[in-house]
Amino acid sequence: MRKVILGCGITLDGYIARPDGSTDFLVMPKGAAKVAEDFYASIDTIIFGRKTYDAMQRMMAQGEHEGPVGPWKTYVFSRALPSGERDGMTFVKESPAAFMRQIRRKPGKHICHMGGGELARSFLQADLVDELWMHIVPILLGDGIQIFPAGFPQRDFKLRECKTYGNDLSLVYARAREKNTGRKTKKAR
Amino acid sequence: MRKVILGCGITLDGYIARPDGSTDFLVMPKGAAKVAEDFYASIDTIIFGRKTYDAMQRMMAQGEHEGPVGPWKTYVFSRALPSGERDGMTFVKESPAAFMRQIRRKPGKHICHMGGGELARSFLQADLVDELWMHIVPILLGDGIQIFPAGFPQRDFKLRECKTYGNDLSLVYARAREKNTGRKTKKAR
Repeated sequence: MRKVILGCGITLDGYIARPDGSTDFLVMPKGAAKVAEDFYASIDTIIFGRKTYDAMQRMMAQGEHEGPVGPWKTYVFSRALPSGERDGMTFVKESPAAFMRQIRRKPGKHICHMGGGELARSFLQADLVDELWMHIVPILLGDGIQIFPAGFPQRDFKLRECKTYGNDLSLVYARAREKNTGRKTKKAR
Repeated sequence: MRKVILGCGITLDGYIARPDGSTDFLVMPKGAAKVAEDFYASIDTIIFGRKTYDAMQRMMAQGEHEGPVGPWKTYVFSRALPSGERDGMTFVKESPAAFMRQIRRKPGKHICHMGGGELARSFLQADLVDELWMHIVPILLGDGIQIFPAGFPQRDFKLRECKTYGNDLSLVYARAREKNTGRKTKKAR
């Protein structure tokens, strides 16, 4: 089965970007290039939300990002932008759940949800995230754009991998959907 | 020099408690008892904020917490409660910076700031945190009380220790106060 992997680079206080959207604090650590290479070889689809798309467009305009180049299919979720294919990307208006039902029926490699933020919340609400690939840099930003904005039910995971690269940390978690994980799931009142 | 260690048990999405203050998801993992023991042997002072104090009082009333028993001196920061000693604790109205200047002049072991939340923000604003001891459980809560509420300047750290206990992760970070950490510190606009 094709897995949905939420891939993110975050600070110790859980931010994917500064309040202005910049991500200068995310630097690929020595030795992590191979991990990134293996990761990109395991996926054929990348998904992100409209705000990540906007940030990418700004960075492309400033020559800081080369856009979604690669052998993967790229989808952008946006309720506001017209749906359909353009600029090498497919714009999607559907709900994450409806979209994922369709895409999982087709054969293919894993699907990477890049970034986090509001689209991550939608994916977690619908319990669509199968794995978390988190790269954690050793800073507290004090403010920024959150990887996991509040507003979804408890989701339990299992730690599958933990590696350090100097002061950076690379973690892989797999969703634990079986009932008996040993941790209580408490319903919100 | 006596260090201030922020000790916390958090979820993957950075919560120290559910929205109602409960922390049932924090269970001491097998093998971590020795770490906790060594930690408590290295400190002689525990500091927490009024909300942690309130939560502890509630848990004590329900027989779920035995209170701040131990050979350490306990301080509760509160602007609202009367200052002074009572019930084995010392209530403090001073700013964290003024308080820490005094306490660091006295000889002693390290000082543990337990919990996080609003008092952690005050400590980070004044750059009083020397180490982070973070125990991370593999769940996304989706909502709760944040360990690092927004509102302090960027603080850089170095990863000093990383251990796994089953699906839990135990991390120690030390504050990197020297200028040249290789990561940009961007001023807020």
